[in-house]
Amino acid sequence: MFNYVIKGNICYSKTSRELCIVENGYAVCENGRSAGVYETLPECYEALPQYDYTDKLIIPGLCDLHVHAPQYPFRGLGMDLELIDWLNTHTFIEEAKYADLEYAQRAYSIFVNDLLDSATTRACVFGTIHPQATKLLMEKLEQTGIKAYVGKVNMDRNCPDNLCEPSAEHAFAETEQWINDTSSYENIKPILTPRFIPTCSDALMEQLSVLQKKYHLPAQSHLSENLGEIQWVSELCPDTANYGEAYAKYGMFGGGCPTIMAHCVYSGEEEIALLKAQGVFVAHCPESNTNLLSGIAPVRTYLNMGIHTGLGSDMAAGSSLSIFKAMAMAIQCSKLRWRLVDQSLEPLHFEEAFYLATKGGGAFFGKVGSFESGYEFDAVVLDDTPLLHPQPLSVKERLERLVYLAQDQHIIAKFAGGRNLFER
Amino acid sequence: MFNYVIKGNICYSKTSRELCIVENGYAVCENGRSAGVYETLPECYEALPQYDYTDKLIIPGLCDLHVHAPQYPFRGLGMDLELIDWLNTHTFIEEAKYADLEYAQRAYSIFVNDLLDSATTRACVFGTIHPQATKLLMEKLEQTGIKAYVGKVNMDRNCPDNLCEPSAEHAFAETEQWINDTSSYENIKPILTPRFIPTCSDALMEQLSVLQKKYHLPAQSHLSENLGEIQWVSELCPDTANYGEAYAKYGMFGGGCPTIMAHCVYSGEEEIALLKAQGVFVAHCPESNTNLLSGIAPVRTYLNMGIHTGLGSDMAAGSSLSIFKAMAMAIQCSKLRWRLVDQSLEPLHFEEAFYLATKGGGAFFGKVGSFESGYEFDAVVLDDTPLLHPQPLSVKERLERLVYLAQDQHIIAKFAGGRNLFER
Repeated sequence: MFNYVIKGNICYSKTSRELCIVENGYAVCENGRSAGVYETLPECYEALPQYDYTDKLIIPGLCDLHVHAPQYPFRGLGMDLELIDWLNTHTFIEEAKYADLEYAQRAYSIFVNDLLDSATTRACVFGTIHPQATKLLMEKLEQTGIKAYVGKVNMDRNCPDNLCEPSAEHAFAETEQWINDTSSYENIKPILTPRFIPTCSDALMEQLSVLQKKYHLPAQSHLSENLGEIQWVSELCPDTANYGEAYAKYGMFGGGCPTIMAHCVYSGEEEIALLKAQGVFVAHCPESNTNLLSGIAPVRTYLNMGIHTGLGSDMAAGSSLSIFKAMAMAIQCSKLRWRLVDQSLEPLHFEEAFYLATKGGGAFFGKVGSFESGYEFDAVVLDDTPLLHPQPLSVKERLERLVYLAQDQHIIAKFAGGRNLFER
Repeated sequence: MFNYVIKGNICYSKTSRELCIVENGYAVCENGRSAGVYETLPECYEALPQYDYTDKLIIPGLCDLHVHAPQYPFRGLGMDLELIDWLNTHTFIEEAKYADLEYAQRAYSIFVNDLLDSATTRACVFGTIHPQATKLLMEKLEQTGIKAYVGKVNMDRNCPDNLCEPSAEHAFAETEQWINDTSSYENIKPILTPRFIPTCSDALMEQLSVLQKKYHLPAQSHLSENLGEIQWVSELCPDTANYGEAYAKYGMFGGGCPTIMAHCVYSGEEEIALLKAQGVFVAHCPESNTNLLSGIAPVRTYLNMGIHTGLGSDMAAGSSLSIFKAMAMAIQCSKLRWRLVDQSLEPLHFEEAFYLATKGGGAFFGKVGSFESGYEFDAVVLDDTPLLHPQPLSVKERLERLVYLAQDQHIIAKFAGGRNLFER
């Protein structure tokens, strides 16, 4: 098992407002979990092997609560459309290619290598409808040591023929087989993934609800992202009071089924109350919501209400896998929302963005996203010496700066669940 | 002089909507200016030396119309305040340090090296009030081959004692001496730089106006950035109908004095008409306007009206020198403005952002920002091979992707006015 000490400037959140920094302190990993952070190393740990990252920054691994692996090939492309047109014009065409395992092999290798190079140690990943390609993605991720939930996507209506499950029964059978085939990985776990209500018939949702009850899997989907989409859902589901209920009626909206809902840009009072009551996680994806002209989610409301909230890259409506970028854009978008929409909602501070990216999102995976005792030991070591400065900077200032300026080249080591994923 | 041919995928704007791409074509540099772009190299140029960048992207050098060199040390820091508080809390304290030439030496070395590494070939730069430090900055920039206007800042009120010119006469004398000391560089030229109306007394503006008439220098300043600032200006200048007039009455608002005004977030109809009539350049700084909670400028309006517009990093209210980032944020902010403020103003397309960063801003420097015949030969060569993709991509798609994903490491060569600044 994983037992060692890391020395460096250790930064982690206790709460959304409380950032702890121990300068050139010691984080102890015992059996893959944190045994605490110390200014002076206790004698009982002195015999452990040490990683010496004196003067470097050590932060919890970052959590990406919403990322579409098959969309990675067109990152940064096709940025002129709103959600539904973007899906039809770019996304579905790309995702259909994953019927071809050779294409999936090529594409997922690129995605997985780049995710490994990033600061992300935990992710909730969408695949495509294809069980074989999704298994391939899971195998590749498993080998990196990244910890992730990965979903074979379900969709059976309002999508092109070559990216449409032929019936709810067929979807059930394929999804159950896929669950059985992929439940024994160490790092990667299956998650139920109805794409979103517009592409999931009642019959399909019914079948997924059976699978949920049988296998007790978590779920992930999209919620209240875009005004056109929300209008469409209200037409498709005239019997539900809000978009969230369309998932809740099939038992895939928190409660006994741990659930992530991406976006929640336009959730109304009732939907927000349901998110809260059911313990649903909100994956805030500020770059995506900007690029697809959706709007800006009221993250401050979610934080104030104690709703579980984390960040998502939403590749490829977001252009980058960097959760540092998601932090910066979460702050920036919250400022524009304050200025342009609602001055009762205070913009996010950088400590809060850091919390969302670590402990906030990490909670979906258990005790993850902090160095407090008992937390799984996910760590990223950052070397910011290339970012030269003529004046002294505090560790906190160096961390704030990295939120805006970190690139993969600054990441010199990464650990997930105690395992060392790389050092360079 | 500079005579050669560059081969590669040549991309440049003819108009804000018309992007020209010549795949593996030839751009010819004659005496530092473009002699055209060709699919097949004309015989008369066959004897010229060739740079072979087959399959790479070649774009005009990018233009940063608004950047504060002395603020580079605190890039990415202190992002929780609006403009006036931010100036008082962070900016003025940092800028006062440049009275110390040793500090300026250290700080400006970092800034200049990083600007050289970027895709920027043209810049309009603010220094501080200090003539010696500003000269040092100009000397360092001169050595890189970057072409820039640099301003010794003028300010004599509403600023701390250690960053305040003691009188308008003193400011006149120091500024005139500085102009005389710095007018003979090849690449770097002085520009009049009243910081902004709140820190410039009428007497100071009067003196600068005398200098403008005597030396025919261009000018740069800030305009209508933030609601609090605009209110303050209206109190300071009760006799002017708008903020722009407060510059115009001293002859530093276009017309015979080529002028850049940064921001123009809240310019009203009359001010916009004045910008247009006087040929003033708008430096659109989307990241700055977001970080300082200012708002989003109506760039679509400026483009529609044919007002000269370019992009600015506005370091350090913007966190990065990257004009690629400014392009991406110009698009993104225009989308949020469309969604949240005014759906009559269509969001920017990537071709338009590219135009703003090249030919749009370049026009301030003369025939700059394009490879059309007669334009000064500024070029940046981009190697995007590290951005792997499993499917074929067109050159246009590769360019769009770089707007979102380009980092300095992708820049493998840079030319300004024909001179090769680096190859790597």
